[in-house]
Amino acid sequence: MTNTKPAIDEQLALLKRGAVHLVDEDDLKAKLQSGKQLRVKLGADPTRPDLHLGHAVVLRKMRQFQDLGHKVIMLIGDFTAMIGDPSGKSKTRPPVTLEQTRANAKSYLDQCSLVLDMNPDVLEIRYNGEWLEPMGYEDVIKLAAKYTVARILERDDFTKRLQAGTPISLHELLYPLTQAYDSVALDADVELGGTDQLFNLLVGRDIQRDYGQEAQVVLTTPLLVGLDGVEKMSKSLDNYIGLTDEPHEMFAKLMKVPDTLLDNYFTLLTNLPKERIDELLAGHPVEAHRVLAREVTGWLHPAADLDAAEERYREVAKGGIPEDVATVTVASTEFNADGRVGVLRLATLAGLAASNGEARRLIQNRGLKIDGETVEDAQLALSLDAPIVLQKGKDKFARLIRA
Amino acid sequence: MTNTKPAIDEQLALLKRGAVHLVDEDDLKAKLQSGKQLRVKLGADPTRPDLHLGHAVVLRKMRQFQDLGHKVIMLIGDFTAMIGDPSGKSKTRPPVTLEQTRANAKSYLDQCSLVLDMNPDVLEIRYNGEWLEPMGYEDVIKLAAKYTVARILERDDFTKRLQAGTPISLHELLYPLTQAYDSVALDADVELGGTDQLFNLLVGRDIQRDYGQEAQVVLTTPLLVGLDGVEKMSKSLDNYIGLTDEPHEMFAKLMKVPDTLLDNYFTLLTNLPKERIDELLAGHPVEAHRVLAREVTGWLHPAADLDAAEERYREVAKGGIPEDVATVTVASTEFNADGRVGVLRLATLAGLAASNGEARRLIQNRGLKIDGETVEDAQLALSLDAPIVLQKGKDKFARLIRA
Repeated sequence: MTNTKPAIDEQLALLKRGAVHLVDEDDLKAKLQSGKQLRVKLGADPTRPDLHLGHAVVLRKMRQFQDLGHKVIMLIGDFTAMIGDPSGKSKTRPPVTLEQTRANAKSYLDQCSLVLDMNPDVLEIRYNGEWLEPMGYEDVIKLAAKYTVARILERDDFTKRLQAGTPISLHELLYPLTQAYDSVALDADVELGGTDQLFNLLVGRDIQRDYGQEAQVVLTTPLLVGLDGVEKMSKSLDNYIGLTDEPHEMFAKLMKVPDTLLDNYFTLLTNLPKERIDELLAGHPVEAHRVLAREVTGWLHPAADLDAAEERYREVAKGGIPEDVATVTVASTEFNADGRVGVLRLATLAGLAASNGEARRLIQNRGLKIDGETVEDAQLALSLDAPIVLQKGKDKFARLIRA
Repeated sequence: MTNTKPAIDEQLALLKRGAVHLVDEDDLKAKLQSGKQLRVKLGADPTRPDLHLGHAVVLRKMRQFQDLGHKVIMLIGDFTAMIGDPSGKSKTRPPVTLEQTRANAKSYLDQCSLVLDMNPDVLEIRYNGEWLEPMGYEDVIKLAAKYTVARILERDDFTKRLQAGTPISLHELLYPLTQAYDSVALDADVELGGTDQLFNLLVGRDIQRDYGQEAQVVLTTPLLVGLDGVEKMSKSLDNYIGLTDEPHEMFAKLMKVPDTLLDNYFTLLTNLPKERIDELLAGHPVEAHRVLAREVTGWLHPAADLDAAEERYREVAKGGIPEDVATVTVASTEFNADGRVGVLRLATLAGLAASNGEARRLIQNRGLKIDGETVEDAQLALSLDAPIVLQKGKDKFARLIRA
């Protein structure tokens, strides 16, 4: 394997691509030169089991380490998740049972398998309950003694909350130390994380030294901006592309990435060399989008699905109706005495609107079509004697048939 | 027992005598009125096993609760002492083994028996290892979640250290919570301590409520000022009167209490009523000192010893030499070819000076006598054909004989 590895400087260049912080480069270089299989840690948050391209950024970086022969360690915080936020003040940290965490972790790791190499030679899955559960009061005291209050309060969010008078519970100060102790337990050589994790990752360096270990290299990747071009990608903001999105859905979403984010998406989500990216950015945006959509969809889906997805996208873009539209059967109880169903209700049943009100606004905005014709009248009622295709905007379709 | 108890208001007045903080009086009154045997906690610091009158102040307050039928709980922090200061930064908290702590605690409790009623009906001795040793990481997190960083940093010494940039280790923030949790484990109704403990004792109230208990009443007693009239009494400052000092030593030291402290000593260390104290303070200071010395010495020693101690004090005060002077035998190897020993060496052997230099200064200051005569010549050498009494100042004596 060693023989096939690129030169150290090439390895470094690859690993630094898209990285925000690297603490520090000399340490990483020395570790790469040592020739040993490095242990590269990533803390997983299994309480949010739906992964999207935002998560893929750091997972791709992990994969690069794997491809260089190193071992990635997916650390599942089952013990900390179980504790949650015992003060009950944080709604974002509800306590989760060990069983839930294990189930979430399974789903999480299944999705990771789209990006990571799941070969156990280069993958280790660990749960922090393994070393945190047996810790006693004395161990906690000894760990806490290794860090000062002033240093921990330097963390950005703590500083802001203290200044704003927003309560910080004492146990919150222990979590960064716990995360750092995970690195000790795992004997991590490198830890990856989002830029928002920088502080916690650096605590790991200090604590490892305190426990007589070599400090881990810290490498952060940026938070990916979502399809709205403003907020970071997240499911709750509905500006995301899920790792398990259907090929045609993924392709279509990628075609809508704001132009300003193209460089970013190319750098973080494809292997295209910088020169090629620059060339694409200098060319027509539609072609750049098409290459991005093919690269990313083709990475996460089989090649055959990729071509079908692109074909479908083209058809829809031309105003056509794709062949593989999902069919919704309308129950007989939905029909009125005249044997008809209102169009608002049909749009809701088809999943194209969340409510009659939303469906009405859709029609007012000329955003709903039946068999390619724009619906003008919100009072329209249909008998569905023959199947129809209901269409929202350019690329959402449903075929409706009578039960 | 209940029938013989004084009225609630009298009980309150007794318990409030000399107290600095009482949080709060209504709670204490309600607890006293409940008629139940109260559990009154005192955290002992067995790492400093030599008790003096400064410690006796709070112990006397504990004894008052005992005399009213309540149970005092001497809490030995064996577990916390074992951990010490794991950061190694505090020289005042060296780690101590469990065995050492137990041995120290025995000596500590032996001395407490001079003040407390050791009857198990009104005394419980507990070690916090009992509940801290089994605590796990999760328990610590849950405890820490009950308090905010801002509130704990309000503690005076933390605030000052943060402002001064003096490091505070994270584990130090956990100690007040641990002490508070001790109150939960003991289901304490009242906790006593020095004024410097006020913050920690109040945390106990909050944490008990969080664990569904009634908040303990907090009562603090003042730090006793030592014989120098300036610093708080402490062994290291040599301004103390030890609980186990010999009767004549204790009596003599009490006769030297600065006049300005007489009121304080009477209030905190005797049962004399306020009117009697005022009367004494209005009279001649020597008489006030004599009453104080008799009260305190008579409290800690048998009556017969008290009279002997006073008798000896009078004799020494008149310039006489007391009868019961300790004898030091001077080894034959100490004598020179002429069969003599220098006076400087004799003063050192007698324990009246730490070195020849100190002995010389003593003579220069006319502070050393032989058989009642001031020594003028530091070169003096004696054959000790007959025993002599060497005297330092007014009240330190040693009888020297030749081996």
